[in-house]
Amino acid sequence: MPQFRKDPVTSRWVIIGDSPDVVFGHEPNHKSSKTCPFCPGHENMTPPSILVHPKKGASSPADWQTRVIPNKFPALKIEDTPEKTSDGFYDRVGGFGAHEVIIENPDHYKEIPDLSEEEVEVVLKVYRERCLDLRKDPRLKYILIFKNYGPDAGASMEHPHSQLIALPIVPSRVQGEMKGAEKHTEYTERCLFCDMVHQEAAEKKLTVCSNDKFMAFTPFAARFPFETWVLPKNHEASFDTISDALLRPLAEILKAVLGKIKNSLKDPSYNFMIHTVPLDIKTSTSFHWHIEIIPHLTRVAGFELGTGFYYNPIPPELAAKNLRELT
Amino acid sequence: MPQFRKDPVTSRWVIIGDSPDVVFGHEPNHKSSKTCPFCPGHENMTPPSILVHPKKGASSPADWQTRVIPNKFPALKIEDTPEKTSDGFYDRVGGFGAHEVIIENPDHYKEIPDLSEEEVEVVLKVYRERCLDLRKDPRLKYILIFKNYGPDAGASMEHPHSQLIALPIVPSRVQGEMKGAEKHTEYTERCLFCDMVHQEAAEKKLTVCSNDKFMAFTPFAARFPFETWVLPKNHEASFDTISDALLRPLAEILKAVLGKIKNSLKDPSYNFMIHTVPLDIKTSTSFHWHIEIIPHLTRVAGFELGTGFYYNPIPPELAAKNLRELT
Repeated sequence: MPQFRKDPVTSRWVIIGDSPDVVFGHEPNHKSSKTCPFCPGHENMTPPSILVHPKKGASSPADWQTRVIPNKFPALKIEDTPEKTSDGFYDRVGGFGAHEVIIENPDHYKEIPDLSEEEVEVVLKVYRERCLDLRKDPRLKYILIFKNYGPDAGASMEHPHSQLIALPIVPSRVQGEMKGAEKHTEYTERCLFCDMVHQEAAEKKLTVCSNDKFMAFTPFAARFPFETWVLPKNHEASFDTISDALLRPLAEILKAVLGKIKNSLKDPSYNFMIHTVPLDIKTSTSFHWHIEIIPHLTRVAGFELGTGFYYNPIPPELAAKNLRELT
Repeated sequence: MPQFRKDPVTSRWVIIGDSPDVVFGHEPNHKSSKTCPFCPGHENMTPPSILVHPKKGASSPADWQTRVIPNKFPALKIEDTPEKTSDGFYDRVGGFGAHEVIIENPDHYKEIPDLSEEEVEVVLKVYRERCLDLRKDPRLKYILIFKNYGPDAGASMEHPHSQLIALPIVPSRVQGEMKGAEKHTEYTERCLFCDMVHQEAAEKKLTVCSNDKFMAFTPFAARFPFETWVLPKNHEASFDTISDALLRPLAEILKAVLGKIKNSLKDPSYNFMIHTVPLDIKTSTSFHWHIEIIPHLTRVAGFELGTGFYYNPIPPELAAKNLRELT
């Protein structure tokens, strides 16, 4: 069974799998819709659906627009227990958690930039619905929604999909962000992310695009070339409390930004991750949910691994200009 | 000019380059020794040497075994100043530092497993010599020595080489490791890494190989499949104080481990990084220098980027067994 192990030096948690037979390779599987288990008509090749959102005007419940299934090769298992054990002075915790796959749409070849805004909105609505359902389990402490697109971003399936991992531990990365944001609020009584939005609204150096409700910009200290963040303009701590009124503007900006990245950078591999507050935090004046989009144009190498610093050869204001000016 | 920028959320430093014309691609350059600027006879294609270690029994000083040059496309520049400026509420620091390339040996096609132990020892001696020279500059706070081998590990040149980056800031990653190690020492009055060596000497579950002076093992919470650490068995805080007597045993174990990784995993890309104490720390009872070797078999994806957790499908004890049993 999978298990969490804690590195005693850094207190960093690692999920150790139980896949000794894993075959390493960077090419996604099922390149054709004929054999793809995520394509319509192949539903019996996957575990049963957790959630099905029907196609607009569908006559049959089998006619789905977006579908959520458990990951067939999960990093974590909901039937495991978060039991703590030791191995000498090392710590481990049972691999309890959830690992789901959100099949974004039925068409094997249609990624987010190719969908209608209405179709992207369904994907976002499904994200929210899964969060609201999983947060009922008090053993879960954090939910991460993310997408790996393309071989360089770790995608193992070609059919358009995103993933959800629910964890019994709040990740150190999230704790670090929460702490950093709180420090700013203690000092200024303002939200750090709202300050970013305001400074950028005035300076317009880092903006990729924006609408009434959301702003997309390259962060001042972007780790990766063309890294882009999408933030709600008004303060909101948690993604899963997003109102219906914000879903369409979010769909619009996500489709626009991913389209710009696709078209200006020759369809690169990318990841996006929704950064939100831990489940036991109801509201926060300092943390502000957002989406971080990371195109994979460079490799994380020895310098990054050895220091935790990043080296980004492209100034973010230049990346923003390139993306912004692309129509 | 390059500059350091601080992410206001995580306080993570990023080096922002000035290479807007960078061409993205993952294949190393100069695949043939005919055009390779690191090959003997092509010394005029690189900046002048900082250090040259002659070949054994060389008759001419041009007949080198290992050579150090400034990086032609440096992430940092020694002629820059570590001046602090702001951009609204964002912080930046001038891109002061050193970025050097260690050309490990003259032969374009000979990597560490293919060299003699004596030749590997020269590379390690040169690492030490560059550290001892650079630590004279009081503006430098940390030196990282690392190697990117192969396209998936971010190597941009094919000729066997490693790199050195000297920074005016102690990386957060290093601070975190120091703090974690100190916490263990406060509590136990022992060194955490020495404890790892002792527990492993008794249990022998994670050992890859060892000799009198060094132990190579897969860490209990390995982030990556086949990740391997090399530690001196006796407590030593800083790599650059390594005694002459330890250089040969280190060369022996590094050659052995990299050979095992090459042969058991189809010559994968890998990084290694020397983890050592910051320059202003003379001695430490809690930190213990070591080398971390990371083969690139999986991709860092959305889960890792979003949480700081890692997912490793291969249990480290199984990876160790595979490497150990390979002769």
